[in-house]
This record gives sequence, C-alpha cells and structure tokens, in this order.
Amino acid sequence: MAIIGLDIGGTKILGALFNKHGEIIDKEKNPSLGEEGFDIFLNQIHKTLDKLIKRCGKKIYGIGIGVPGIVNKKGKVLFTPNLPIKDFDMAKHLELKYDIPVKIGNDVNLGTFGEYSKLGSRYNNVIGLFPGTGLGGGIVINGKLYIGQGFAGELGHIVVQKDGLECGCGNRGCLESYASKKGIITYILNEVNKGRQCTLKEDALSGVLKSSKIKKACENKDEVVMEALEQFVEYLGMGVGIIMNIFNPDIILLGGGIIEAFGDRFLKDIKEHAKAYAMPGIYKNTKIIQSQLGDDAVIYGGYYIIKKEWFD
Amino acid sequence: MAIIGLDIGGTKILGALFNKHGEIIDKEKNPSLGEEGFDIFLNQIHKTLDKLIKRCGKKIYGIGIGVPGIVNKKGKVLFTPNLPIKDFDMAKHLELKYDIPVKIGNDVNLGTFGEYSKLGSRYNNVIGLFPGTGLGGGIVINGKLYIGQGFAGELGHIVVQKDGLECGCGNRGCLESYASKKGIITYILNEVNKGRQCTLKEDALSGVLKSSKIKKACENKDEVVMEALEQFVEYLGMGVGIIMNIFNPDIILLGGGIIEAFGDRFLKDIKEHAKAYAMPGIYKNTKIIQSQLGDDAVIYGGYYIIKKEWFD
Repeated sequence: MAIIGLDIGGTKILGALFNKHGEIIDKEKNPSLGEEGFDIFLNQIHKTLDKLIKRCGKKIYGIGIGVPGIVNKKGKVLFTPNLPIKDFDMAKHLELKYDIPVKIGNDVNLGTFGEYSKLGSRYNNVIGLFPGTGLGGGIVINGKLYIGQGFAGELGHIVVQKDGLECGCGNRGCLESYASKKGIITYILNEVNKGRQCTLKEDALSGVLKSSKIKKACENKDEVVMEALEQFVEYLGMGVGIIMNIFNPDIILLGGGIIEAFGDRFLKDIKEHAKAYAMPGIYKNTKIIQSQLGDDAVIYGGYYIIKKEWFD
Repeated sequence: MAIIGLDIGGTKILGALFNKHGEIIDKEKNPSLGEEGFDIFLNQIHKTLDKLIKRCGKKIYGIGIGVPGIVNKKGKVLFTPNLPIKDFDMAKHLELKYDIPVKIGNDVNLGTFGEYSKLGSRYNNVIGLFPGTGLGGGIVINGKLYIGQGFAGELGHIVVQKDGLECGCGNRGCLESYASKKGIITYILNEVNKGRQCTLKEDALSGVLKSSKIKKACENKDEVVMEALEQFVEYLGMGVGIIMNIFNPDIILLGGGIIEAFGDRFLKDIKEHAKAYAMPGIYKNTKIIQSQLGDDAVIYGGYYIIKKEWFD
C-alpha cells in the first residue's frame, strides 16, 4: 500500500509517495505556474499526481493535500491569496479523476500535524507557528488536528497592538503585521523613508525577501535589518507567550524559512520574550522547539491525515 | 444515585445535589470565611458537603468542584488569589474524608463546561469568556473540557496592547486589564485623578464595584462610567474577535455579573466590535450568546464532569 502527500505552494508543487512504514519512496516536484491561470495550474497538480501514481504501481489508499489558503471541511478550497483558485471543490475533482480518497487542509495546519505526528505519541497538544510571508498557525489537540468549524488556527490574526500596523486581513495590529516577512518589510521601508540606508531596500520594495538574504544582511551588520529582526523576534516571542496562556500545550513548534536560517540563537531570544508574556507556571511546563521536517512538513501532514483516517 | 456540584467562591460556597436526570434536588449555601484563615475556610467546605450528604441518603457517585484559582490535573489547588489555600491537595483530602471520588477544576473552566453541557450535544467547540473582577476563560473542544497541561484557558491574559496597562499578572496590556471590573476601576480612577467627577469614585477606590451599581450609574448618565463601559465593551468585543480567529468555535459564551446586568443591548455592541476584529468568514459562522445558568454554571459544571467520567 502507499499514500501520497502533496504540498501545493505558491511557487512549487511537491508530491511524495509514502510506503506503509511512513517512509518517502518517491518524490515529484513541479512549478505551480499559478500566474498562468487556473487551467495550467490545475494541470501542474495533475502532472505531479500522474507521475507519482504511474511510478508507484501499487494501490494508493489516499491523497492528503495542503493548500496555502482557506479550505472547508469537505476539501473545497474557498480562497488562496497567491494562487488562481477560489471556491473550487478540489477534493471532489481529484477523487472523481483518480478514484482515490482525497483530504485537503490548510498547509500550515497539515505541516503542524506532520511535525506532531513525527514527534511520536508522547505529546497530546502541540501548537505550530510558522512565520513566512505571513504568519500561519496550526493546532493539534488530543492528538488530532483541530480546525473548529474549518478555519481555526489563524494565530497570525491575534491582535497584539490595538490600532497598530495595518494588516493584510483588513485589521490593525495583528501579530502577523510584526512577526512575519511582511512585518520586516514594513519596518525596513519605514526606516528607508526616513532617509536611512538599508542593503535590502530593493528587495523590500519588491515585496519579496529571502530568508538567506536577511541572514546575510545581519551578518554584514545592516542596522535597519537587525532592528527589524529584533522587532520580529520580540513579537514572535510575545505571540508564543500568548499562545502558552491560551493553550498551555506540551509543545510550541516554530518553523519556516527565517526560523531555519537563524536556528538556535534565535530560539533562545524568542524564549526570553515568551517568558516575559506567559504566566510563570505555564511557561515552565511548555517546550518551545524548532520544526524538524523543514520543507517536508506538509507532505508528511498529508500522509498522516490519510493514514490516521484509514488505519487508526 | 446522586452527584454533588460545588462552587467554592471568594465569598460563598454553593453546593447542589443532582439526581440522575441532572436536576437539582437540594442546595446548600454558606459563607466562605476565607478571611478567617485556612482551617475555618476548610470547615465551611466540610459543613456544606456534610449537610448535602446527610440530607441525600443515597449513594453519591462523585463530587465535582470549581475553585477560583489554579488547579492541577490531579485536583491539587496550587494558588488562589482570594482564598487561603495554596498547594493544597484538596481532591485527595476530600476523597479520604468522604470516600467519594472528587474532581476539581478552575471555576470558569467548570462554568463553561456546565453551560456547554446544558446546551445539549449539538455543539462541539465552545469557548466561555466571563468578565468579573478579572477575566476568566474556559475551553470546550470536541465536547470535552480542554485544560492543556492543566492551566489552559487564561484568555484574559492575551496581550492586546503591547506595553499597555499594567495587569495583576505582572504583564502589561492583557485583555483583562481592560475588559473586566479591574479595567473599569482603572479607567474611573484615572479620570478622577484628572479632576473629573464620578459617582462611583468611592467604590472604585475601595476596589469593589458591583455590577448593579455600574448599571445604575449608567442610567444616571455618569459620563466617566459610561466611557469606562464603552472601553470595556470595545475590548471585550475585540477579545471575542481574536478568540474566533484562534478557535473558530461553534459558540462563544459570555457570562458574569456585568453581562447579566446589561443583557441584550450590550451583546449587540460586543458583536459589532467582534465583527471588526474577526476574519469575515469566521465571524459569520460563530454564534455569540449569553450564558444561561448564571450563578449555577459552576455547580452544573461540577455535576457534568462527574457524570461524563462515570456514565459516558
């Protein structure tokens, strides 16, 4: 038997074939081509699945898919900010096409579930926070992915500064406005507008900032970038503290490009800030760890939601 | 068979005997006498239980207790701000004394669970927010009380205003600093210090503000009190919106003295503010309702945690 995990991202589609031991036995990666419209984008998904299914040769029990957007409980993709799909019943479409059960969820939810499941069953409650362009969250409660009525886990939209910075969601002062690449860009552009120099000015103006470039600018002692990162760390740490007060989970998982680029030292600073905002007893019993699966988190999540449905 | 629900409050201890249909068949109320020290306070608990047990005459399956403080999973009361108990293994003490199983939880958690259970099984996920002196929260996920590692649901300690008002927890800008009686008192005292008149000045100075008095001051058009309440409603509404984004629950339950005193009109204003802070799709599918059980919420919660343990 085999299970497919699929990570549909803004720039690439990553698929993987898992065997019954949960090992990846094949992978297939293709560009999303979202900018070329719905038909071509959908074709890229088909192409990725076609190749994996053809090369597999065995019965496939299910396809678990993560999408960077809002997905309802039935696997209908309601909205994605960076891909040409809206109100598309993707689960139904793919089930009809391949005659294989399909489950679809938000990518950060699935990534958190993948990380959680790989940690083993020692833990019950794990919250994931993944700062990237925005700030996504995932919630695992009693070993199950928690999505409420479908859309829970919008942890980037906890308001931490009433009447603060404008957020993409239309509100002000959301955690995401500070603890994300968007927050770093906003900080840099504000300082540049005041006349300060910054080596990442052009990147910030383009709206695309690579984690590796942020790291390099820090190593080169770019003051504006260092300040922007300090703000990022402070707010992310505050977010971690707030989430501890709400969930008192076993673990808070931090992932995404910036976290991976900066690693342990960063984690230490985030913990310091979290400690300042969490209730003391709660802080003590919650672990803060870095995600282990990197770019594979979502495909593992896809694998595990199918596996738990079929075999638990 | 019978079950006892017990609500240990800062000023009174309320006990109730429930029959197998979940109906209250007897009640017993005594002052807590916390100010007279641990022994006398503990004796008041014994007295309440003794009377209920004696008058019952039948086998009692369990005692479910809500305490206004921090309780661990084993029923040890770690800390209460307003009662003379600290690190007291109350569950064990009472089990030894009465030879009846005892479960103890935080009062707001139990109150939320009581309200949830009375709503029937149509709903899975319900979050309770109970503004009183402070702001307590309770979380029900998939029909079960969620307490994380024991202390989850500190929803009053979501930071909504970084570097904002000082909170009793030692932090700044917690939701509780605004959306609670403490928040109303702070607002009144600030304005009084600026030289403004307020009919509740003396109450605010004493630190004790009754909901009925707040309502009367509003009816008498006390401007400072009206502004303080406006701030309360705005922040509570924001808190409701944030909680929607995190949990996307079926229902958010609002309870406590102020909510009960002001009723429906208040709820309408809170909804307006919540709408401004929640993601649109999430706001639409979440109900905001007023608690139904009033002062009986915690005893019902005590009844249901025992009942579900024994009979589900």
